[in-house]
Amino acid sequence: MNFDIPAELKALQEKTRRFIAEEIIPFEKDPRVTAHGPTEELRNELVAKAKAAGLLTPHASVELGGLGLDHFAKAIVFEEAGYSTLGPTALNIAAPDEGNIHLMEAVATEAQKERWLKPQVAGKIRSCFCMTEPDPGAGADPSMLQTLAVKDGDDYVINGRKWFITGATGASYAIIMARMEDGSATMFLADMDQPGITVERSMDALDACFTGGHGVVSFNNLRVPAADVLGEVGQGFRYAQVRLAPARLTHCMRWLGQARRAHDVASAYARKRQAFGKALGEHEGVGFMLADNEMDLHTSRLAIWHCAWVLDQGGKGKNESSMAKVICSEAEWRVVDRCVQVLGGQGVTAETIVARIWSDMRAFRIYDGPSEVHRWSLARNIMKPPKAAH
Amino acid sequence: MNFDIPAELKALQEKTRRFIAEEIIPFEKDPRVTAHGPTEELRNELVAKAKAAGLLTPHASVELGGLGLDHFAKAIVFEEAGYSTLGPTALNIAAPDEGNIHLMEAVATEAQKERWLKPQVAGKIRSCFCMTEPDPGAGADPSMLQTLAVKDGDDYVINGRKWFITGATGASYAIIMARMEDGSATMFLADMDQPGITVERSMDALDACFTGGHGVVSFNNLRVPAADVLGEVGQGFRYAQVRLAPARLTHCMRWLGQARRAHDVASAYARKRQAFGKALGEHEGVGFMLADNEMDLHTSRLAIWHCAWVLDQGGKGKNESSMAKVICSEAEWRVVDRCVQVLGGQGVTAETIVARIWSDMRAFRIYDGPSEVHRWSLARNIMKPPKAAH
Amino acid sequence: MNFDIPAELKALQEKTRRFIAEEIIPFEKDPRVTAHGPTEELRNELVAKAKAAGLLTPHASVELGGLGLDHFAKAIVFEEAGYSTLGPTALNIAAPDEGNIHLMEAVATEAQKERWLKPQVAGKIRSCFCMTEPDPGAGADPSMLQTLAVKDGDDYVINGRKWFITGATGASYAIIMARMEDGSATMFLADMDQPGITVERSMDALDACFTGGHGVVSFNNLRVPAADVLGEVGQGFRYAQVRLAPARLTHCMRWLGQARRAHDVASAYARKRQAFGKALGEHEGVGFMLADNEMDLHTSRLAIWHCAWVLDQGGKGKNESSMAKVICSEAEWRVVDRCVQVLGGQGVTAETIVARIWSDMRAFRIYDGPSEVHRWSLARNIMKPPKAAH
Amino acid sequence: MNFDIPAELKALQEKTRRFIAEEIIPFEKDPRVTAHGPTEELRNELVAKAKAAGLLTPHASVELGGLGLDHFAKAIVFEEAGYSTLGPTALNIAAPDEGNIHLMEAVATEAQKERWLKPQVAGKIRSCFCMTEPDPGAGADPSMLQTLAVKDGDDYVINGRKWFITGATGASYAIIMARMEDGSATMFLADMDQPGITVERSMDALDACFTGGHGVVSFNNLRVPAADVLGEVGQGFRYAQVRLAPARLTHCMRWLGQARRAHDVASAYARKRQAFGKALGEHEGVGFMLADNEMDLHTSRLAIWHCAWVLDQGGKGKNESSMAKVICSEAEWRVVDRCVQVLGGQGVTAETIVARIWSDMRAFRIYDGPSEVHRWSLARNIMKPPKAAH
Repeated sequence: MNFDIPAELKALQEKTRRFIAEEIIPFEKDPRVTAHGPTEELRNELVAKAKAAGLLTPHASVELGGLGLDHFAKAIVFEEAGYSTLGPTALNIAAPDEGNIHLMEAVATEAQKERWLKPQVAGKIRSCFCMTEPDPGAGADPSMLQTLAVKDGDDYVINGRKWFITGATGASYAIIMARMEDGSATMFLADMDQPGITVERSMDALDACFTGGHGVVSFNNLRVPAADVLGEVGQGFRYAQVRLAPARLTHCMRWLGQARRAHDVASAYARKRQAFGKALGEHEGVGFMLADNEMDLHTSRLAIWHCAWVLDQGGKGKNESSMAKVICSEAEWRVVDRCVQVLGGQGVTAETIVARIWSDMRAFRIYDGPSEVHRWSLARNIMKPPKAAH
Repeated sequence: MNFDIPAELKALQEKTRRFIAEEIIPFEKDPRVTAHGPTEELRNELVAKAKAAGLLTPHASVELGGLGLDHFAKAIVFEEAGYSTLGPTALNIAAPDEGNIHLMEAVATEAQKERWLKPQVAGKIRSCFCMTEPDPGAGADPSMLQTLAVKDGDDYVINGRKWFITGATGASYAIIMARMEDGSATMFLADMDQPGITVERSMDALDACFTGGHGVVSFNNLRVPAADVLGEVGQGFRYAQVRLAPARLTHCMRWLGQARRAHDVASAYARKRQAFGKALGEHEGVGFMLADNEMDLHTSRLAIWHCAWVLDQGGKGKNESSMAKVICSEAEWRVVDRCVQVLGGQGVTAETIVARIWSDMRAFRIYDGPSEVHRWSLARNIMKPPKAAH
Repeated sequence: MNFDIPAELKALQEKTRRFIAEEIIPFEKDPRVTAHGPTEELRNELVAKAKAAGLLTPHASVELGGLGLDHFAKAIVFEEAGYSTLGPTALNIAAPDEGNIHLMEAVATEAQKERWLKPQVAGKIRSCFCMTEPDPGAGADPSMLQTLAVKDGDDYVINGRKWFITGATGASYAIIMARMEDGSATMFLADMDQPGITVERSMDALDACFTGGHGVVSFNNLRVPAADVLGEVGQGFRYAQVRLAPARLTHCMRWLGQARRAHDVASAYARKRQAFGKALGEHEGVGFMLADNEMDLHTSRLAIWHCAWVLDQGGKGKNESSMAKVICSEAEWRVVDRCVQVLGGQGVTAETIVARIWSDMRAFRIYDGPSEVHRWSLARNIMKPPKAAH
Repeated sequence: MNFDIPAELKALQEKTRRFIAEEIIPFEKDPRVTAHGPTEELRNELVAKAKAAGLLTPHASVELGGLGLDHFAKAIVFEEAGYSTLGPTALNIAAPDEGNIHLMEAVATEAQKERWLKPQVAGKIRSCFCMTEPDPGAGADPSMLQTLAVKDGDDYVINGRKWFITGATGASYAIIMARMEDGSATMFLADMDQPGITVERSMDALDACFTGGHGVVSFNNLRVPAADVLGEVGQGFRYAQVRLAPARLTHCMRWLGQARRAHDVASAYARKRQAFGKALGEHEGVGFMLADNEMDLHTSRLAIWHCAWVLDQGGKGKNESSMAKVICSEAEWRVVDRCVQVLGGQGVTAETIVARIWSDMRAFRIYDGPSEVHRWSLARNIMKPPKAAH
């Protein structure tokens, strides 16, 4: 047991940290950061910087052009990237591309990789993941999937509507989750610029960190050839799980970086700002909040590292990633909310980056399984009869 | 002891409730609700509706054209107004006008009332309250006031900078808090459209419910005649207290309405939306959140009513309004945050009004004294030697 | 709406306060306060004092010898009694006698009142309430009742086992809840000193405030004549509700007194004890805890008063008493737990009364419906379709 | 970075677990567990069992007869020992002996080790640590030390009073912290059975897990020869720190075991007990508590392991042990408190071990620095100007 970061990884951490500080943070006030996320133009500019720095898509395999990071290395690098609200965009490790790349590497055919994955790893195109649906469709409960794929000759014809589809506007291709007539689910790949796919509208969301924002997407007799099925027919729910455990852990990593950023901003303010006769942070009422931040950052990081290690050992990490998701989404949230409070009036305005992080982060307690679904899943596990030995 | 609402007040409550539901809520999606609050045009339209309904500026005295509500009646009516994000604007009871009207009635001269208060009560003009300053000026600690007023002949010459000045853009007049050369403070009245006053910029805030947003205001050799001093010279801190206790209680009232609204939206959703085999709210994980909401709304309302009663009895309500501020700003916040969670994806988008309320409400834990300042003040009171009996 | 305490009630409050301070608190260190509660001897001594002071069984009707307090008056007097761990015993308002007296007054026949209620109101005898059962019997879920009453001629023959029966050891009579063969439930009255009833053992509980402790009671062919049925056959569950709402509210009242006591002890310590250069309570970390105490005491009291008013208006107060139970049991607990923390080493020893209160109070979050059952019940109510208007 | 437990340590973990389950837990209901802890007789019996199992004093060096465990190995073994309320007593790793042994190994002379440490490691004698004093002496703030040691020839003469001295009754020797005339502090060793030392009384504490309970100890002209000074004169505060960081971490370890035990008991109950139509734990209201337990146990363990690793690397672990202390004492407490709630009536009685653990654990948030002192210390660190790079 040890918490050592190997020297090579430490160097990568340091490099990422410097890259973010020097090349990305200056863009945070760029007007091209809109209410629906960075514009494509800004994204391209940031991606180019990461490419030049050798930090683009670091989680992709070396063959594909990435750095082939394992889960622990991702924990280190993604936290650093997350230190800027634009870091994940720059490194091409933002949701949903990060998880889609992971899934595509694991499941896609060579032809599919050539067509979609390679340009995506190179930062040239983006993707979206079409899973969640409006009521009465699939939200936190995937079994309620309404979008239907019907076999028609060698093709599948897909009809349905999805929403909260991150990055839909501007995405080049979509991974579409659809129900089959036998009740199973399948994942399909499809270019976005075809008549059967419409981005009906952009949704006005609390966050502004995802390029393309969040869209409502409808499929009207979308015809997908059999060759564009992702993996095997009927295995959609299984692949969703393949994608989910690591994907939700990378959220924990990136948001940890943002929470640390907020904490650094609030701490600097608490050191400098005077009130009632001394520095703000010398008031226990404020200092204790900062101390709690430090503990919440600490336990979040430990939970991430532990789960990353389980995944690196080949474990599925179902329980561990559920725990990490709940622990991090709640602890990191507390950190950022406390930072707003410490900053006072400035905390609720764009005077610092903290208000932006605060708005961006709220959805983290909801997506990839709200806290309640994970608690339910953990509880169900506890309710199983214990094994003989313990 | 009783919790009866007199019949007449009950009728006013019912009338306000209907007015808000039928005439104001439909405007919530009006594009004239901008990131810096409702436009003046929208405000005027809403104010006209309240005037037509006989509900405008209800807390002003009857002589001035209001309904002369006491604090308890305000608790009832303001909660109803708060049920819409636009309700306080419509009724002319939003901050800072609501508190400014109260202060002006208590302290201003007849001439000042004629010139500023009357058109304000009629909803024709707006005001701002220039108190908080950028570092190293006065924030939560008023003793750090930097803006300086220097006597010059019969006039005072004011220099300084203020920020987080709600409603500054578009306000007709300002109440300005400034330090005197002897260290005391004085309040001054000044028209906003004069060379000595500049609204440097609008601040990008989390909230979008205040007409005119929040501005940075600077005073450059602003010359104020002695006749425009509000109340007595050197009594600024005392008047700030006069304004503060009731003003912070009206925040509790309005936000209670918004929290109740969020709770109603989330409850309706939890009744209708199915997940994992039953209605969302039948899951204890969700139902318990709604139950906690109900308890938080209940205790908030009780704390408000109690403090209103103390004020109506002629008490200063220092401790009571501090308690109400902390209890309400934290409990009402928990309510709205839980509603976001219950609503899931919809909670973090503009699909419902809840995300708007959530963003709008965050500053409530900060303005009019952050929770920490009130806890400190309550604690200081506890630390005084107890009286002989008790 | 007002929070006035009528002068007469204020005098009674003051009288009770003085009585507790001068005559009861000195007994708190009496060695006759055992791990299973005050001994009968000590109880008799305390009861005699309350009788002499005219404060005995104040909630009983005037005809029976009480003061005929309504719910609000109980809120005032019981809080004062609760200020000492022995106060409720002295005033004969401790559970379960307090609730049993209330139930007997409402439901018992004249003969039953003569035989059991009168001496009980006079403080001469005690009773117990035999409801909860060991697994798989009735705990929080009353529908699981296992104890069976079978009609046999004019009598009923009862068999079963009960536990957590407060005051069983030394009680003169029991109210027994039993299931009928048709699935309904009935309440029976029975003297404890008869062969069919055995107190198997005393349970070692965290609390030590109930005379007679908590016992395991078994009924072995206990024969109860029809005349000793309490109320009507088959109405047991309904009477349990009659008893419960007010009974759980009186818990809130008494424990509020104890929480206030703990707060006073901790506040006095925080004023006096020096650490790290100033009085303990001048450290915000401690002062904020005391401020939170004050707010928790405040909201608890308000929730009690409100529910008492609903009951005094003739309401059933189902929702209100559920809310009061959860609010008070959790808020008053937080108060006492914070007091332990403020007192440091002394908080976890018998150096002050606070450790005793802390241990005594833990069960309050469980009995008369654990918080979870009340939240579930509140949620179920929220899930009902709302009425047309609102 | 990895979380592997080496095979040898895993075997020791398994062995300890079995030992505790089979040989120690059966003693938990032994009547020799008194309100002031296990009797000496019971302790001797348990120690003999651990000795026979080769598990006695495992943290002592191999030379002295221990297993020479490093901090990480202690984390593993002490958690297992803590699974029984009597486990730490059996293994001779309970406070204060565990920490005293550590301190003695680090600082004592050979002669001192021969005389006191060897028999202590062998489990033959016990010690106490005389630090905390009644008001106005040293509590959480060590600088307030009142006990005075005055040089007199080659001896020191000590006068003062200490309280909360764990294990004082029955201890063979004491480590005494005293102030010198120059304001520095020194640690002294002294046999307890001499006229200058009096155990005035035992304190009635919430816990019952420490042999000898907690005593008030007074020194009346206690004469200590220079040879019995522990380490150097004037270095008392420094040695207190040497002792404290690891000592507080071992508390985290042992209590983690107890929290896990409580969680196992509550989980088993939640699996078996039916209520409202299904197993208790299938109610989300209960299941979520168990899920939260699992997460709190997880983060506690991770924080312990991390700090152990820092100490094993030679770090002082000041910040890390402060964080671990706060995280564990609060998270483990939440676990046990939730277990009480899940168990309902049984949770507040001796029907299960959980009520015992609950009472025993409360002081953990207070001793070795209350949460507030650690938060203050963490905050102070955050307030230091950050290093150039970060």
